[in-house]
Amino acid sequence: MSDNPSFVLQSVGNVSIEHRPIPDLSSDNDVIVEVKKTGICGSDVHYLVHGRIGDFVLKNPMVLGHESSGVISKAGSKVKHVKPGDRVAIEPGATCGSCTHCKSGRYNLCPDIVFAATPPYDGTLARYYRVHGSLVYPLPDHLSLEDGAMMEPLSVGVHSVSHLGSFRTNQSIAVFGCGPVGLLCMAVARALGASRIIAVDIVPSRLEFAKKYAGAETYQPIPPSENEPRIQYSRRNAENMKKVLGIEDRGSTAIDLVVDASGAEVSIQTALYLVKVGGTVVQVGMGNPNVTIDLGMIMVKELVFKGSFRYGPGAYALAIALVSQGKIDLKPLVTHRYPFTDALVAFNTTRAGKSEDGKGVIKAIISGPDVSVEAS
Amino acid sequence: MSDNPSFVLQSVGNVSIEHRPIPDLSSDNDVIVEVKKTGICGSDVHYLVHGRIGDFVLKNPMVLGHESSGVISKAGSKVKHVKPGDRVAIEPGATCGSCTHCKSGRYNLCPDIVFAATPPYDGTLARYYRVHGSLVYPLPDHLSLEDGAMMEPLSVGVHSVSHLGSFRTNQSIAVFGCGPVGLLCMAVARALGASRIIAVDIVPSRLEFAKKYAGAETYQPIPPSENEPRIQYSRRNAENMKKVLGIEDRGSTAIDLVVDASGAEVSIQTALYLVKVGGTVVQVGMGNPNVTIDLGMIMVKELVFKGSFRYGPGAYALAIALVSQGKIDLKPLVTHRYPFTDALVAFNTTRAGKSEDGKGVIKAIISGPDVSVEAS
Amino acid sequence: MSDNPSFVLQSVGNVSIEHRPIPDLSSDNDVIVEVKKTGICGSDVHYLVHGRIGDFVLKNPMVLGHESSGVISKAGSKVKHVKPGDRVAIEPGATCGSCTHCKSGRYNLCPDIVFAATPPYDGTLARYYRVHGSLVYPLPDHLSLEDGAMMEPLSVGVHSVSHLGSFRTNQSIAVFGCGPVGLLCMAVARALGASRIIAVDIVPSRLEFAKKYAGAETYQPIPPSENEPRIQYSRRNAENMKKVLGIEDRGSTAIDLVVDASGAEVSIQTALYLVKVGGTVVQVGMGNPNVTIDLGMIMVKELVFKGSFRYGPGAYALAIALVSQGKIDLKPLVTHRYPFTDALVAFNTTRAGKSEDGKGVIKAIISGPDVSVEAS
Amino acid sequence: MSDNPSFVLQSVGNVSIEHRPIPDLSSDNDVIVEVKKTGICGSDVHYLVHGRIGDFVLKNPMVLGHESSGVISKAGSKVKHVKPGDRVAIEPGATCGSCTHCKSGRYNLCPDIVFAATPPYDGTLARYYRVHGSLVYPLPDHLSLEDGAMMEPLSVGVHSVSHLGSFRTNQSIAVFGCGPVGLLCMAVARALGASRIIAVDIVPSRLEFAKKYAGAETYQPIPPSENEPRIQYSRRNAENMKKVLGIEDRGSTAIDLVVDASGAEVSIQTALYLVKVGGTVVQVGMGNPNVTIDLGMIMVKELVFKGSFRYGPGAYALAIALVSQGKIDLKPLVTHRYPFTDALVAFNTTRAGKSEDGKGVIKAIISGPDVSVEAS
Repeated sequence: MSDNPSFVLQSVGNVSIEHRPIPDLSSDNDVIVEVKKTGICGSDVHYLVHGRIGDFVLKNPMVLGHESSGVISKAGSKVKHVKPGDRVAIEPGATCGSCTHCKSGRYNLCPDIVFAATPPYDGTLARYYRVHGSLVYPLPDHLSLEDGAMMEPLSVGVHSVSHLGSFRTNQSIAVFGCGPVGLLCMAVARALGASRIIAVDIVPSRLEFAKKYAGAETYQPIPPSENEPRIQYSRRNAENMKKVLGIEDRGSTAIDLVVDASGAEVSIQTALYLVKVGGTVVQVGMGNPNVTIDLGMIMVKELVFKGSFRYGPGAYALAIALVSQGKIDLKPLVTHRYPFTDALVAFNTTRAGKSEDGKGVIKAIISGPDVSVEAS
Repeated sequence: MSDNPSFVLQSVGNVSIEHRPIPDLSSDNDVIVEVKKTGICGSDVHYLVHGRIGDFVLKNPMVLGHESSGVISKAGSKVKHVKPGDRVAIEPGATCGSCTHCKSGRYNLCPDIVFAATPPYDGTLARYYRVHGSLVYPLPDHLSLEDGAMMEPLSVGVHSVSHLGSFRTNQSIAVFGCGPVGLLCMAVARALGASRIIAVDIVPSRLEFAKKYAGAETYQPIPPSENEPRIQYSRRNAENMKKVLGIEDRGSTAIDLVVDASGAEVSIQTALYLVKVGGTVVQVGMGNPNVTIDLGMIMVKELVFKGSFRYGPGAYALAIALVSQGKIDLKPLVTHRYPFTDALVAFNTTRAGKSEDGKGVIKAIISGPDVSVEAS
Repeated sequence: MSDNPSFVLQSVGNVSIEHRPIPDLSSDNDVIVEVKKTGICGSDVHYLVHGRIGDFVLKNPMVLGHESSGVISKAGSKVKHVKPGDRVAIEPGATCGSCTHCKSGRYNLCPDIVFAATPPYDGTLARYYRVHGSLVYPLPDHLSLEDGAMMEPLSVGVHSVSHLGSFRTNQSIAVFGCGPVGLLCMAVARALGASRIIAVDIVPSRLEFAKKYAGAETYQPIPPSENEPRIQYSRRNAENMKKVLGIEDRGSTAIDLVVDASGAEVSIQTALYLVKVGGTVVQVGMGNPNVTIDLGMIMVKELVFKGSFRYGPGAYALAIALVSQGKIDLKPLVTHRYPFTDALVAFNTTRAGKSEDGKGVIKAIISGPDVSVEAS
Repeated sequence: MSDNPSFVLQSVGNVSIEHRPIPDLSSDNDVIVEVKKTGICGSDVHYLVHGRIGDFVLKNPMVLGHESSGVISKAGSKVKHVKPGDRVAIEPGATCGSCTHCKSGRYNLCPDIVFAATPPYDGTLARYYRVHGSLVYPLPDHLSLEDGAMMEPLSVGVHSVSHLGSFRTNQSIAVFGCGPVGLLCMAVARALGASRIIAVDIVPSRLEFAKKYAGAETYQPIPPSENEPRIQYSRRNAENMKKVLGIEDRGSTAIDLVVDASGAEVSIQTALYLVKVGGTVVQVGMGNPNVTIDLGMIMVKELVFKGSFRYGPGAYALAIALVSQGKIDLKPLVTHRYPFTDALVAFNTTRAGKSEDGKGVIKAIISGPDVSVEAS
């Protein structure tokens, strides 16, 4: 087994499995991970279909995948917390450690970050992946390698809800969008002791899932009237939501934090009308970049509107702890599983939102090339 | 002098001087202030012209004015920090002191706030005004009553820059809009030790003033191209601004804080492109409520976008201290002065932006009815 | 029932039941509470025995008691959130609402606070007590009046652990002292999602209780050697504790927060050696005022050592919510109950630490004078 | 000039100049600095005299010195912000960049920090010193190399006052101890816009210097009475200080922040009595490790007592900016200058507190071995 089969995006819409060289340690602080499980993220699909996200443009072939777990295959001499054979979750962004952002506790903003499957850097969908030792987190015995792969999107939820949203026990939250990230934001809120979780989506089955999975109250937006200006509709929708769910602008029924995991303009607009006076809205869903918002709401309610980008210090550690303590169950979110050779099917299924049998996708996970040794 | 001449907005566009009863103390904690100087704010003019701001609608006659100073005429028995004859600045928002917002240090969000000249509450443009003793701040001897009247808009600047913007010594700021609030935001930034202040406005004379007044570098936006989508223009404008002024997204040339005091959509759009990675934008200028923003910027740069509403704890005290210590000079901002009987002229001049002689207005100040005792 | 029997501390060691006049509303914002349950606090006992705590000295007769719940008997016209007949917990400190501390969110530091049973202000051990409406909190139906009386000490725990200690889900805590406040700090930490709770006490039965009540690991300090300097002993004790419990100075086994609820010098010394590098120690237990600490530890580990005084904004609301949601159970802490006429027995039992039958006291609760209407 | 003369502490009290090999780059991110100016710190002297500080014990010969500036001699290929010939200040602590403390913005707590002249790591008193490129800060042209060497103690002041003390414009500060660190804390407070600076010392000439240098008010402690318990004396001293200087516990005359740069027990005791209700005390002076404090003060005033250790993110950058902008003048603090060959004299003078001519030492600076090329 000396080769390193890798799932490579050659150009827009064009993938293949290449046999690349096995990476070696480039420093005493590195580890080589034998990748076992990789979740498919919307951004992976976006690169496959469009070849770019914002200013990140695919120019050369690139291995896809960044939500991975695996087993330590080799560890540099200075790596103390893991050894070959250990099961780990992989944090896919290697940062410089010495720029202003890295030094001040916001390493996700490091300009020199090497992030898996963001051009021009290769991702993790290969048999072996090399990474700095500080980016692999041992998995407790009772967590599976699939759990390990899910730590990446869960860390996005932790960063958005706990770090940026400063969410604390007994606060209330509304989450717009019941895809994987939205559901994980709800799971984090629940694990942190939310007094109330409200899920918003236009698809009833997704709301149903959120209700069961995260104990969420649910709200399906009312339809807009014909020719109704969108922002006027959003305000009406928010007022209806408040009435139906018994939400006020202040006090114990008010919503402390709204997370938009949909990226839809009406969600963001509604969020600003919905959140409490003095509240916070965190934007984690990427959608249409240009959205119209009601500036008056932001001012009169003195809101804070924050963008969320990946995850920072402590996100992985908290994600693993919450799952390990049983406060979050990741298993119900893994709806589809594929062998490495069917990786493209996994991508197409994620893109379609459901598999050929009609089953809705929350998260599709691809097993590493070396299926024979899988232990999870 | 037993009566209380008051400048009353009877209905939209219709004002008169009424002789109202002199207020008396309603509790041992109240004071009666003989009002000496009142600045005219854009919101006063807005009520005069439109009869409403957002959800605040004029339904009954209302005394205008809320930027005032005066002399204590009577003080309740429990008021210890001032006595009759003392010169004071008046904070025009009386809060309940016992709601969640008041108790947690955000009294500007008190739902029961009684704010001068916000319907249905009367303002300060009268000979006498009654207010809770904790809302009058003694003026040091070397400050004038005009300085005292200017503490209200200065407190808006303090709240936006110091409190919400967390601006600190050696940080950099850009301020969009060189009206009174924008200039005062620059003055606050300078007093706090800004390393760099950039003023943005479309009117060259206003930029010139900002340069002299606050030591600001200046930027006049480039014109949009024909048919250029506004947000595309804003991005181009921001890129040009960065190039011309040597601004980068990170490091020592980056802009830590942007305050928009213009309320213009292109300003807000440009602000989001301009501010540093991980930076903060504070919105203090009220304009068109619906603005389109680039959500991608907020996310990828992990920005914080905050609305600013009036001022909270400590704003008046810091405003007075900065002026008293000579770190801010308010005198250059008072461009026009009127006796009480010409109050309407002051409003019309503020509305027009210049007086009949062509002199541009920054701040017009109306003297109290009792001109004979003026001491400033 | 027109009179108001009150339990009055006449002078040091000398109490009696006086029939005082029934209080009336002094403003439209007040309520009159018919007091139903009152817990006895160490400070009440301290006034009884010593007549003073620090600079607060009993000079005139004073009603004792400040941990109370009751039923609204009368409500001022401006009080909206409760009405006669409602069951409430009483926050016993009335603050001015307009000083710097009150306005900036630290009302517990208000210099004019009127705190029940702190000289010269009367306490709550009477049939009727008048208080500002914002200081009574409705009890959910499933909470008892005894729960309501316990909200006062629970708020001390909330303030120390959640507010001052910034304790969050998955952090670890050690609490020195397993009296009522120590146990409630553990209960709060558990409710907030502590990864690990360590109880320290010299009495094995108290440790046993902490283990059962709060799921705490326990540590009984080793004995000092003969002639061993106290601070040297404390360091040795901390090292032993780390070894026995597997605690390190950093990383996942480190202790994020230590709360000292004992007031004992060796506890505080041990706390500073025990807490993690960069950690926080909160002092809530009042003991010998002069303690010797190792300054080197505070510096080299860059610790934060905070004093805790009563409770601030949001403490009561969070306390009630945590109990209401079943995250904290207050019932096991109420070990002794007395009718009003036996109030002195309750004090003596609390002072002795156990009742005549040898049962250890955690909290003794006295029922209001009107036993016939008790509903809890 | 191929050798590397180094000032080596061979054993307690025993130093010599050794000719060590010239270091080479160990990675592409390193630089080699030709050291030009090195200030002597109390800790350097402490190692010379005692061979240890706390748990750091000299076991092998060690080069002394850690307050240095110099000229870049060689730069690794990945170092972009400096090039050979550039004048730089050197931050003497190299951190791992990947531990929890480093990632979360508290790199001064990194357990693997390699700090110059802290055993077992060599210091900077040599011709050449190798350091990670991110630890050298270019000096603006108008700053001297002596200024550069002073950035290290100034960063201690920045960290204590600005970062840990959260000191802001218009706050007041008292600093105990008028040695170099105390004076630099005052200088930082002044540069940040202090409303009031109070210097405390037992030596009148040092107070006189603080007055001239930092515009400080001064206070010389009263003498203790015979047999007066120390803590009782400290309280009396604090009360006297409040009376003499017109300081109260709250309001505009209260002291927001106290920094103890003396390490003396009576200073720390007095600090806790002096600081305002709700205030902060930062401990930066290392003295007798065991001090007795009044716990009651910490609790009743709800104080925060923080240890300060070296400096964290942003300290060097702010230090250089404040000097560059003329807000801090370092020149008056450099009282003694020595050539490299007289390094031992510099140490002895610092230890004695004055040179043979009787001139008091604030800071003694040693020039690098290569005196012929000095440019500052």
